[in-house]
Amino acid sequence: MNSLNKISGTEIIQMKTEGLLTAEEVMQDCLKQVDVREKTVKAWAYLDGDLALKNARIIDKNKKSGRLSGLSVGIKDVLDTFDMPTQMGSSIYKGWQPTTDAACVNILRNAGAVIMGKTATCEFAGSFPSLTTNPFNLAHTPGGSSSGSAAAVADTMVHAAFGTQTGGSVIRPASFCGIFGYKPTYNIINRAGLLFAAENLDTIGLMARTIEDIDLIASVLLNRSLSQTPDENSQPLIGVAKTHLWNEASPESRTAVENAVKELSRFGAKIVETKMPATFTSLTNVRNTINDFERSKALSWHAAHHQNQMSDNILKQVQNGNSISWDQYRAALEHAESARASVDAILKPLDFILTPSAHGEAPKGLASTGDARFQGYWTILHTPTITLPTHSGPNGLPVGIQIVGPRYGDTSLISWAKWVTKIVSV
Amino acid sequence: MNSLNKISGTEIIQMKTEGLLTAEEVMQDCLKQVDVREKTVKAWAYLDGDLALKNARIIDKNKKSGRLSGLSVGIKDVLDTFDMPTQMGSSIYKGWQPTTDAACVNILRNAGAVIMGKTATCEFAGSFPSLTTNPFNLAHTPGGSSSGSAAAVADTMVHAAFGTQTGGSVIRPASFCGIFGYKPTYNIINRAGLLFAAENLDTIGLMARTIEDIDLIASVLLNRSLSQTPDENSQPLIGVAKTHLWNEASPESRTAVENAVKELSRFGAKIVETKMPATFTSLTNVRNTINDFERSKALSWHAAHHQNQMSDNILKQVQNGNSISWDQYRAALEHAESARASVDAILKPLDFILTPSAHGEAPKGLASTGDARFQGYWTILHTPTITLPTHSGPNGLPVGIQIVGPRYGDTSLISWAKWVTKIVSV
Repeated sequence: MNSLNKISGTEIIQMKTEGLLTAEEVMQDCLKQVDVREKTVKAWAYLDGDLALKNARIIDKNKKSGRLSGLSVGIKDVLDTFDMPTQMGSSIYKGWQPTTDAACVNILRNAGAVIMGKTATCEFAGSFPSLTTNPFNLAHTPGGSSSGSAAAVADTMVHAAFGTQTGGSVIRPASFCGIFGYKPTYNIINRAGLLFAAENLDTIGLMARTIEDIDLIASVLLNRSLSQTPDENSQPLIGVAKTHLWNEASPESRTAVENAVKELSRFGAKIVETKMPATFTSLTNVRNTINDFERSKALSWHAAHHQNQMSDNILKQVQNGNSISWDQYRAALEHAESARASVDAILKPLDFILTPSAHGEAPKGLASTGDARFQGYWTILHTPTITLPTHSGPNGLPVGIQIVGPRYGDTSLISWAKWVTKIVSV
Repeated sequence: MNSLNKISGTEIIQMKTEGLLTAEEVMQDCLKQVDVREKTVKAWAYLDGDLALKNARIIDKNKKSGRLSGLSVGIKDVLDTFDMPTQMGSSIYKGWQPTTDAACVNILRNAGAVIMGKTATCEFAGSFPSLTTNPFNLAHTPGGSSSGSAAAVADTMVHAAFGTQTGGSVIRPASFCGIFGYKPTYNIINRAGLLFAAENLDTIGLMARTIEDIDLIASVLLNRSLSQTPDENSQPLIGVAKTHLWNEASPESRTAVENAVKELSRFGAKIVETKMPATFTSLTNVRNTINDFERSKALSWHAAHHQNQMSDNILKQVQNGNSISWDQYRAALEHAESARASVDAILKPLDFILTPSAHGEAPKGLASTGDARFQGYWTILHTPTITLPTHSGPNGLPVGIQIVGPRYGDTSLISWAKWVTKIVSV
C-alpha cells in the first residue's frame, strides 16, 4: 500500500480499525512526504521522525481502538506537548520543554491520534512570519499565523493540524493553502496549555483536507456525535454578507462567493443579502484595541527581560497596547459584546452566512502573511466559521469561501459545510 | 520603625516614595511576622527569605519609583513566576519551575511591587485543601482555594495577594479571614501564565486589608486612574439580593446584611429588595456543569499520566466532566450567557447589589474549605464583586458582606466599597 499520507483521515481510521494498516505504516508515509518536501515547504518547527514513529507504535500496541486511531496530527507550536519542545516562533523559547500536553493535544492522543510534530508559527501567533512557504507556489506566503499547520496539511505531510486564530490565523492560511479550516465558537475548545496572545479572541481551530475529518476531530474534542449530513434536497436560507470589506476584496474572492451563490441556488438554496449593522465597520479597530491591550499584558515579562529577541511587529503591538487605557479597552469589550448580540439576531432566521474567506489568493512574498481583516471580523464576533477550498485565482492559487453560523451552532455549521462541499466544486 | 508589615500598602508606597523606608526594610518586617506565625498558619507554598529580600533590593536600586514601589505581594501558587517554583497544590508539579512570569505578576513587578513568595492553594484551585489554617482560630478553615493568600494577608505577613476564583475561591477565603477580597469582571485581568481550572469561569482577583490597596493594585493592572471616593452624602440605590440561597445562610450572614442595610439607610442609601429571576436557581448546577466539563479537559493529560497523584475530590470532577456531552455543556453555556444579559438589566437602575459573602463564618475543621455557592452564583454571572470585612459571628470569626456591580463596572463598584467601608463598622 502506498501514500497513506494522501488518504483522508476518516478512511485511515476506518482501515486501521479493520486491521488493514498500522499507525506506524501511516506515519512512515507521512515522513516520506516530509523527506521529499520539507526542505522547500518548511512547515515544521520540530519534527523528530523517531519520536513520531514511537508515538505511532504506542497507538498500535493499544488494543482498544480510539475514534481517531492512527490519524496523524500536527500541533501548532504555541500549544504545549509533554514530549516535544514548544517554541512559540520565538527565540525566547528556544528548546523550551513543557511538562504537560495542552488539553486539546492529550484529548486527541487519548482517542488514538498520533502526534507527529510541531508546526511552524508566526512569532507568538502574531504577524512576524516563519520560514514556511505556500506548497502551491513557494514564492507565495502560506498565510499565518498557523503557517506550518496549513502548509503541512495541504502538502499531505499530515492528515490534520491544530491552528489558533486571534485575527485570521486559521481561516486565512487554510484558504491560501486550499484546505478546510474551522474556527469554532470562541472558548469551546479548551485552551489549557495554549500560550495566550489575546485571550478574549484566541480560538483553537482545526485544519484538514476533508470536512468529514474536521467533523470527526471536533466531535472528539467536544464529546459529541458526528454532525448529520443534510439531505441533498435541503433548501437552506443563506445570507450573503458582503460587509464593508467587500469592495476591498480581490475579484477572485468576490467571484468565488458569487459563483457559489449561483451553484447553491441551483440546488435549492434561498439566498438573501444580509446587511451588517453600520456599527460593525469599526470591528477591525475594536479588535485591534483588544488584541494590542491583551498582547501587551501577556508579553509583559518577555518585553521586560528579552526585548531584543522580539520583532518590531510584536513590539509595536506591545507598545501600542501599553498606551491603551482601561476606558478604551472597556469600550472595546462592550462594543464587541453588543455586536455579538446583534449578530445572534442577524443569524437567527438564517441557516448560515456566506462571505469571502480572505482578501484573495495568497500574495507573493514571504515577508507578510496577508490581510487579517476578512477573518478578524468574525473572530471578534466569536461566531464559528469554516473556509471551504472551492475556487482558485488568477495565479492558479486556492481561493476559499467562508461560511458562518451562530455562536454554539458549530455542529449545524459543519453539516452545512458538508452540503456546500458536495455542490460547489472543490 | 517597627512592624511595617502591619501598615497599609498605600501608606508603605507613600513612605517609600518620600524616602522614609526601603523595600528591604518592609520585607524584613514581613519576614519577621512569617518567622513567628508560619509554623501554625501554613500560608506559604514557597517562601525563600533571601530571594524575597533580593527582590526587595532590586526595587530599592531602581531610581524610578513605580506606583507600587515597596509593596509586598503574595502570589497564589497557580500563577507562574520565573524565579520561584509553581506547584499548583499538586505533587504532579513538585519543584516545577516556569520560564516566565504570569502577566499579572510581571505587571506588578514593573510597577515596583516586591514578589514575596507563593501562597498555598487547594489542589488545582479546586476543593482539596492545603494545610493552611485560619489565623483567627487555627482549628477553622481559612476558606479556599486561595487559602494561603487570604491567611497571609489577614495575618499581616504580606500586604496583598493574588487569588483566583472559579467557584468561590477569592471571596470566601477573604470573608473567612476578615479582609477585603475583589473578584473583577470576568476576563479583564489578563490570565496569561495561569493554570486553567475552568476557563469560562476562572477569574484572577485580589486580597488586601484595605479597599484603597485593592483599588491601587487594580488600577495598575488595568491601566486606569484610582477610583473616585464618593461624597459621604451620596444616596446610592442599593438592591438587596437575597437569592434562593438566603434561607440557607447562617444567621450571622443574614444579620450582617440586615445590619448593613440599617446603617447604610441611615446615611442616605435608598434600599430596594432585588428579586432574582426564577431561572437563576439553577445557576449552581449550571456552574458545576461548566466547571466539571472544562476541568476534565484541562486535566486530561494529568489524569492520563498521574491519576494516582490526584485527590478523589478532583478525580470525581474529572470523571463527571468526561461524562458531560456537548449538548449538556452547550446548554449550560447558553443558560449562563442568558443569565448575564438578565443581570445586566437588573443592575442597570441600581448602584450596586448587597448580598451575603458566604454561608457564614469559617466552619470548624480543615478537611473542607466551605460552601462555594454564595460566591459561585456571581462567578458564573461574570459580575465584579467585593467582600468587605464588616462583621463577626458567634465564634468571634469574621463575617463579610458582598457587594456586586454590573459587568465592566469595576471602578464604580470599588468607589462604592470605599463609601460602604466608611459607614459600616469594619
